[in-house]
Amino acid sequence: MQSDAAQLFYELYDLYARYTEALDDGPLERWPEFFTEQCMYQIIPRDNYDQNLPVAIMRCESRAMIEDRVTAVNETMMYEPRYLRHHTTDIRIEDPIGSKVKVRANFSVIEVLPDELPRILIAGRYLDRLERSGEVGWRFKEKLCVFDSVLVPNSIVFPV
Amino acid sequence: MQSDAAQLFYELYDLYARYTEALDDGPLERWPEFFTEQCMYQIIPRDNYDQNLPVAIMRCESRAMIEDRVTAVNETMMYEPRYLRHHTTDIRIEDPIGSKVKVRANFSVIEVLPDELPRILIAGRYLDRLERSGEVGWRFKEKLCVFDSVLVPNSIVFPV
Amino acid sequence: MQSDAAQLFYELYDLYARYTEALDDGPLERWPEFFTEQCMYQIIPRDNYDQNLPVAIMRCESRAMIEDRVTAVNETMMYEPRYLRHHTTDIRIEDPIGSKVKVRANFSVIEVLPDELPRILIAGRYLDRLERSGEVGWRFKEKLCVFDSVLVPNSIVFPV
Repeated sequence: MQSDAAQLFYELYDLYARYTEALDDGPLERWPEFFTEQCMYQIIPRDNYDQNLPVAIMRCESRAMIEDRVTAVNETMMYEPRYLRHHTTDIRIEDPIGSKVKVRANFSVIEVLPDELPRILIAGRYLDRLERSGEVGWRFKEKLCVFDSVLVPNSIVFPV
Repeated sequence: MQSDAAQLFYELYDLYARYTEALDDGPLERWPEFFTEQCMYQIIPRDNYDQNLPVAIMRCESRAMIEDRVTAVNETMMYEPRYLRHHTTDIRIEDPIGSKVKVRANFSVIEVLPDELPRILIAGRYLDRLERSGEVGWRFKEKLCVFDSVLVPNSIVFPV
Repeated sequence: MQSDAAQLFYELYDLYARYTEALDDGPLERWPEFFTEQCMYQIIPRDNYDQNLPVAIMRCESRAMIEDRVTAVNETMMYEPRYLRHHTTDIRIEDPIGSKVKVRANFSVIEVLPDELPRILIAGRYLDRLERSGEVGWRFKEKLCVFDSVLVPNSIVFPV
């Protein structure tokens, strides 16, 4: 029973590592695959989250909307080229019950623009709910990215 | 016997994640719960540590002093509002013997002030000794936060 | 079989933590011990890696060359004193077959100069191949450090 905890931790740590890899190294088309069909993805400022204000700077209410977001990033939006690099740390598993689990983790995103030194674009925590199905393993049912800034970086074009 | 190592790693990784969560997301009152009654908590510059100089910028010699520190942060001190976000990485377990273990890890703290971009406040390593008791699990007997800066950030009001 | 995955993850996570410790806390003489005799170590910009250009900013084609690099850092080069602190995160194990495995991870290096605040020197990903031998455990057969900057920091004197 105890080694189940270590095994579950490894499965979820690995999922977050693969999620991060899809965002940092692409292609971004892999990003929607980490979500269930019915899902919720949000990036929300900490102040809004703490005060129960619903205003998010990015909100997708299904995997179809997440796929639309990928299209928008790849085809529509104008932005300066840049590289992003995530750190996902302090991953904590909550309430594992059968094929459902909650996960909390800290994240930061380092942004590298051409001819500039790396800088931290955004930092915060993930508050996620995941489900496991037999064929595809763990996927996000809900992913809530609560970031610590008051100032909204205008370069939050890409998902976190 | 081998899977015991993976299980112990998970237990300690989880402890550090919960410790980080208490500091970053609060309430800070949860911080003292991670320590044994008799304990030592210090934040010390790397140069002092390397030269065996005892001067720490924060030093608590018991859990009672850690609790006093929480009161001081919450009620007494003046500081600009800010958000903090830790990364705890490269966690290494040393010398596990029964209910005692040493742990070494890298940490950094990202600080977010209103209307500013995130920046790194402090970075360094934890050099910790922990003990496990049946009821409460692992707790810190000694937590030594050796930070790499020579310059002491004047905003080290909060624990690390 | 499943708990083998958790055990392998712990072994490799621990190796990366010890590797990081050797670089950050020294002595640097411990760095070559993490490599097999026949090995390849490279630090390469992301643009070059993506375009299959072989130009690396640091390249060692054997452990003997890695040992020479240690000597060069310690005895020959001129550089301002500084502290470095790594974060290794999002570690992902690929294709474990017997005593061979591939590992991918994100890294960043925080640099602290005297009288300055910490800043991110470099960020990127490790793309590594490792081998295990009975006596010494896991070691790097190939370590490829792909960093995200276009600008090459002139302080990349130390290994990553």
